[in-house]
Amino acid sequence: MKNNDEILALFENYLAQIKLPEEPQILYSPIIYSMSGGGKRIRPTLLLLACEAYGGNVQDALPAAAAVEMFHNFTLLHDDIMDNAEVRRGKPSVYAKWGENVAILSGDAMMIYSYHLLQRVPESKLSRIMEIFTPMALQVCEGQQYDMDFENCAKVSVVEYMRMIELKTSVLLAGSAMIGAVLGDASVEECRKIYRYALELGLAFQLQDDLLDSYGTEEELGKKIGGDILEGKKTYLMLQAMSRATEEDRNILRNTYRDNSLTDDEKIARVKAVYDRYDIYHSVEQQISLRFDRALSLLGTLDLPAERTEHLRVFAQNLMGRKK
Amino acid sequence: MKNNDEILALFENYLAQIKLPEEPQILYSPIIYSMSGGGKRIRPTLLLLACEAYGGNVQDALPAAAAVEMFHNFTLLHDDIMDNAEVRRGKPSVYAKWGENVAILSGDAMMIYSYHLLQRVPESKLSRIMEIFTPMALQVCEGQQYDMDFENCAKVSVVEYMRMIELKTSVLLAGSAMIGAVLGDASVEECRKIYRYALELGLAFQLQDDLLDSYGTEEELGKKIGGDILEGKKTYLMLQAMSRATEEDRNILRNTYRDNSLTDDEKIARVKAVYDRYDIYHSVEQQISLRFDRALSLLGTLDLPAERTEHLRVFAQNLMGRKK
Repeated sequence: MKNNDEILALFENYLAQIKLPEEPQILYSPIIYSMSGGGKRIRPTLLLLACEAYGGNVQDALPAAAAVEMFHNFTLLHDDIMDNAEVRRGKPSVYAKWGENVAILSGDAMMIYSYHLLQRVPESKLSRIMEIFTPMALQVCEGQQYDMDFENCAKVSVVEYMRMIELKTSVLLAGSAMIGAVLGDASVEECRKIYRYALELGLAFQLQDDLLDSYGTEEELGKKIGGDILEGKKTYLMLQAMSRATEEDRNILRNTYRDNSLTDDEKIARVKAVYDRYDIYHSVEQQISLRFDRALSLLGTLDLPAERTEHLRVFAQNLMGRKK
Repeated sequence: MKNNDEILALFENYLAQIKLPEEPQILYSPIIYSMSGGGKRIRPTLLLLACEAYGGNVQDALPAAAAVEMFHNFTLLHDDIMDNAEVRRGKPSVYAKWGENVAILSGDAMMIYSYHLLQRVPESKLSRIMEIFTPMALQVCEGQQYDMDFENCAKVSVVEYMRMIELKTSVLLAGSAMIGAVLGDASVEECRKIYRYALELGLAFQLQDDLLDSYGTEEELGKKIGGDILEGKKTYLMLQAMSRATEEDRNILRNTYRDNSLTDDEKIARVKAVYDRYDIYHSVEQQISLRFDRALSLLGTLDLPAERTEHLRVFAQNLMGRKK
């Protein structure tokens, strides 16, 4: 069996040899820019590892792996327009570099191209794989819509937030894992379990992202700490704190980010002081561990010998930056 | 055999019973708005007629017909953002009504949903139909990109323009006809011919659209005459005239639309006077007839008795508003 690094190398090789059309240049070069701009290749790696765990042929699974990565990058192109995000992976976003129209249309072409890649799976499995891919893709749109809705929504519950990140982030991991398992000829029941493994892992991953934004180091996060607080974002931390805090503290949570009398550092310190009063850090940590442990125990329920799931276990640990 | 009106009624019924998810409401209601906003249903009708001509089961072809219509409407949502178009079919565009972010994301969901519909075709044909649909969808994006490129391009040739409208408009008609033929179990050779029939028809249709914009009546066009001239658009008429005119006339063609000393009617009259000097009307008419006649003679080469192609012939005549 290939380990995670070997799988990743195989995938990068495959990606590098995909030949997009050359013209119209302004349609296709943003796609190359976006696809070669790094990223952790989480989704294709997961797909390939799931396929391999069931003894599937990883070579045959490469087009589907490229399809989920292409789809993921398409969502980034369009999300960056909607969020006015000018930087992506330390470089100008497609939206910032080429403008909005190019980001819309190149994004559209990426989404279509992801189906072009997907249809290279063995023909006998195409229909089943599309029945996973397409609803998953729709759910990602739904998640993005809820995320935008929440910005203009006075009250968002923790449950609604969890559902949103499940749609926006986790289902793409879960669907990728499931497609990999289908390509490895796993049974329907096994596919369901590996789907749930990746779903729980995705939630743990997203919650950790929220936690690091306020409590991580700049090194771990790759950008300045406190961005979510300064934007007044309704993260898991914020919503959990809102649900526990007194009215007085809730006002601090609601208004600090737009209080012009404070410096950024003061704003961050002030909100985190409220978080600390309600032990939010540990509450989130606990939720992350719960999801992460669930993911790992789901691996244990698969109808596979332990050594077959080892790479999926290591993948989960790497994703969460855990050594245990 | 069902005639064109019966086919259309069948399609509208099918469309009406498609149940989109209800939530998130802001993602799905623009889709319903767009799909129920009328339109001539050209592409699905063509698909169904092609299927029927080969004796295929029109009921089985309805999902694919809905897929091409959904895809077409998706392109309108995104094109309207790129073109800042506030009106579509006499009503506010999705972009104007809900804003840009909604038009982007609902458009994305429509595109994905078109694959959701497409995958309801008989499983044995899914792979072959996707191999028509996906490249066609990419070509439509390419056409839109060329269209935008041409706006900033000092010199566009008539040949480049024809290639652009082929990609932007005709391939979607051609692909629809071909998918219908595949669903009717037509041979590869027959599929190619019917593809070319629809491609030529699409070109005739688009050229006629250009012609009517300057020489039609407001009733035929559904909007004010001369819009293209007032926007300084590089239409077939304009490019043909540019290729024939003297330098002095070329300057009139280039600059009239932005000459603030003229009223709209004066601008239109001035440009049309140049067109008339080079007999552009008849030149375009000739090109339209050429394409239209080619489409009809391709029908004659199909391996089908004449009565089987009759509805496709009537379809072409109706599309062009011709009685002959």
